[in-house]
Amino acid sequence: MSQLPRAPLTPLVAGEHHLPRELGAYLVKVLRLRAGDAFVLFDPDAGIEADAELVRDVPAVARVWETRRAPRLSRREVTLLQGLAKGDKPEQVLRAAVALGAAAVTFVRTERSVAGAELRADRLRAVMLDAARQCGRGDLPKLGGLVDLEAALNASDGLGLLLDPDAGESLVDFLRTVAPQHALALAVGPEGGFSLAEVQQLLAAGFQPVRLAPYVLRTELAAVAALSVVAAHE
Amino acid sequence: MSQLPRAPLTPLVAGEHHLPRELGAYLVKVLRLRAGDAFVLFDPDAGIEADAELVRDVPAVARVWETRRAPRLSRREVTLLQGLAKGDKPEQVLRAAVALGAAAVTFVRTERSVAGAELRADRLRAVMLDAARQCGRGDLPKLGGLVDLEAALNASDGLGLLLDPDAGESLVDFLRTVAPQHALALAVGPEGGFSLAEVQQLLAAGFQPVRLAPYVLRTELAAVAALSVVAAHE
Repeated sequence: MSQLPRAPLTPLVAGEHHLPRELGAYLVKVLRLRAGDAFVLFDPDAGIEADAELVRDVPAVARVWETRRAPRLSRREVTLLQGLAKGDKPEQVLRAAVALGAAAVTFVRTERSVAGAELRADRLRAVMLDAARQCGRGDLPKLGGLVDLEAALNASDGLGLLLDPDAGESLVDFLRTVAPQHALALAVGPEGGFSLAEVQQLLAAGFQPVRLAPYVLRTELAAVAALSVVAAHE
Repeated sequence: MSQLPRAPLTPLVAGEHHLPRELGAYLVKVLRLRAGDAFVLFDPDAGIEADAELVRDVPAVARVWETRRAPRLSRREVTLLQGLAKGDKPEQVLRAAVALGAAAVTFVRTERSVAGAELRADRLRAVMLDAARQCGRGDLPKLGGLVDLEAALNASDGLGLLLDPDAGESLVDFLRTVAPQHALALAVGPEGGFSLAEVQQLLAAGFQPVRLAPYVLRTELAAVAALSVVAAHE
């Protein structure tokens, strides 16, 4: 790939600037840029990016050209409501969700989530920035949670879909019936799935059960697979 | 999920048996089974499984009921030809490929693969067994490689598809034109993609470019996303 290396910088304005020390070290030591090399800076909060050139490496100075709107990956607004799972699974899911164009990811505390688990917002933001840098995305999904299911449902937009391997309708058949730009909310249970009460709560909120495949997938794989299928249907 | 815990055992025959020490420790210490608990044993080489009961825990003795054919996840034979990527990416891809029903995974040494990289067959088999145990699959994908592209193409069956974000046809549109049981071979480049020469070799072998999404995905995510889309179209 001839893609230029990318790095996040907020705020991002045109001109010649000293870069923050950490960013300079990243450009020189990790991306191995030298004075004269071209790269791209993006500001995921503003959704803009700019071509840049490293003018000096230590301390790092960059020339930043005019900013432009950063490309969004997806026309469709997809919100993932993800039952909180153990360990680094939230990070795995979030990384894939960035690359697959999700507009929002909300982590939901469920009956079968590990009691007392918390998420570190700074760590999740770092994961999203890194994923956005790698995949060329110029914005970040809106991160929600950790919230309970009721709060997640109140805040969720779009046609609700509940992944369920026993559902009569397949996600693929469903996607054939909705316009490619129609907003969707995908609910994916934690390890062990949503409880019966939670499923009823989702159904009462208008979520429709669809099956991804006729067999059970691990929670983190189910989320990635569902986002992949939705992204492939744009 | 009310699914019973699963563990691999080869060969698998009905009767009352002392279990291998390592399997016994796994059942008692990891799965926390006690005497009287039910579980499932599967033999992925024979593609069979059987209900079992732990009769004694240390040393572990199990009663194994009649064996049956283990369920296959997928009707479709899908072969993944995966350009060898760095680090634990082959393992990540393999784990997902087991859960998404791939019939075969062949790792391919490409121009942009890390020079001198090798795969450890014992380690990959352990990853596949663990994934099969988790997802309820009773067989394992046929593992191929590390081979060069020519050998992989000579051994590959099915309609060949080459993932390419710039392809005119989408994978979804393509899948609408083939029967759900038609065998497929999916070629996914390594980090940095296939070289031009390799792309020409794939095209000459009849592989057809299709795009998964209109943007570039990391190699390990591209494989998982493509397998997800294929699995969702059964």
